[in-house]
Amino acid sequence: ENILEAKPVVYRQITVPQPGAKEYCTDSGLVVPSISYELHQRLLSIAERHGLSLERRLEMTGVCATQMALTLLGGPNRFTPKNLHQRPTVALLCGPHVQGAQGISCGRHLANHEVEVVMFLPNFVKMLDCVTSEVTLFNKTSGKQVSSIKEHIPDGPALVRAAADWANQNRAPVLSLDPPGSGQGQAVEAKWSLSLCLPLSLAEGDGRVYLCDIGIPRQVFKEVGIKYICPFGCKFVIPLHSA
Amino acid sequence: ENILEAKPVVYRQITVPQPGAKEYCTDSGLVVPSISYELHQRLLSIAERHGLSLERRLEMTGVCATQMALTLLGGPNRFTPKNLHQRPTVALLCGPHVQGAQGISCGRHLANHEVEVVMFLPNFVKMLDCVTSEVTLFNKTSGKQVSSIKEHIPDGPALVRAAADWANQNRAPVLSLDPPGSGQGQAVEAKWSLSLCLPLSLAEGDGRVYLCDIGIPRQVFKEVGIKYICPFGCKFVIPLHSA
Repeated sequence: ENILEAKPVVYRQITVPQPGAKEYCTDSGLVVPSISYELHQRLLSIAERHGLSLERRLEMTGVCATQMALTLLGGPNRFTPKNLHQRPTVALLCGPHVQGAQGISCGRHLANHEVEVVMFLPNFVKMLDCVTSEVTLFNKTSGKQVSSIKEHIPDGPALVRAAADWANQNRAPVLSLDPPGSGQGQAVEAKWSLSLCLPLSLAEGDGRVYLCDIGIPRQVFKEVGIKYICPFGCKFVIPLHSA
Repeated sequence: ENILEAKPVVYRQITVPQPGAKEYCTDSGLVVPSISYELHQRLLSIAERHGLSLERRLEMTGVCATQMALTLLGGPNRFTPKNLHQRPTVALLCGPHVQGAQGISCGRHLANHEVEVVMFLPNFVKMLDCVTSEVTLFNKTSGKQVSSIKEHIPDGPALVRAAADWANQNRAPVLSLDPPGSGQGQAVEAKWSLSLCLPLSLAEGDGRVYLCDIGIPRQVFKEVGIKYICPFGCKFVIPLHSA
């Protein structure tokens, strides 16, 4: 029995300069404010300067998004040796940017876990280095890479639009990885969204919001003026609710 | 209801050239053979050549070891906002090698999750780059770094011996990260051990064995002659049992 007297619980442990439009809370009631895209970018660039490289963050995001996806796909009930004839299929729609690289990293870990993975990435003449290296690793798995939606190959933005339309018309539920904040235009209607580190203010169409720990240490938060106490408890991915 | 008829389940899905002395199995009965230190090293070096850098593996090992440690420390029961006055303390004993870097990465993620972390690392004139960069990141958390055991500072091997003695005499349970195979001499008696990718043949003193997925893609296993089907299901860390 716990004989130590507990102090009153403080639920507002994270405070940010210029909070975003929305406020979220965790299952246990901790308040998680949203932040602007600019502050989010600043957090990442300072973390990078301290050595939390993009490569590390990609690996961590890939692992955590995979854990979330595997749970959504049925978790321990689905992934048993007795069930190998019913392997789930996941289609990844990746753009040629950091968010795309996160998706490819997630695709690699899913393929490692015996999920049938089809990864869509439009052909571009010049790719970001981080996208290229994720593709190289992905291609060592049994996952497939495609660059067209059913033979229909328009170019540039039209292809991305075609991919988004395909996702919206498909009946499979969509998990959106690191989506832009509301008001940025939204191509795909998601059932779930996974935000990284601290959430942006997301739109209704982003579905249920989850938050992923990407390992940013306390001092980095401090440097951008955020008072941060970890809301994750023993988890690395937690659901958020509109407060 | 599942109306597809399942094929008989194959429990021996992983086959390796020259299996090690021990054989393990998962909770669901899948056989996981042990491999030699040399084969383990070869796996990692080929993975590295394909782009799965040490930095990525350190991040992934740190996250997965942290998930395991947080569960062992009490999981969701312990890590709630109502329990902040009882933060657990973890001491990390890290050598100046890759295993040490894995420990420091784990220490950083633990500290990020509000665990009180004390990280012991002996002072060396020349450190591996991977150790130095983990230390830099660790020092951005609230974790403490020490290089002596209670003021008693012998040099070199004697200090490591003193640290091991301290761990063995301490009543706190020990989690050993990526321990050497049996027959390599064993400094610390562990309650649990976490092996990476495929287990070495571990000694009795390594305690209960867990296995951590470090994201090596199928083709890398193939290149070293291992037929591999993922034994992890929807998890990234699983318990192993002596078969």
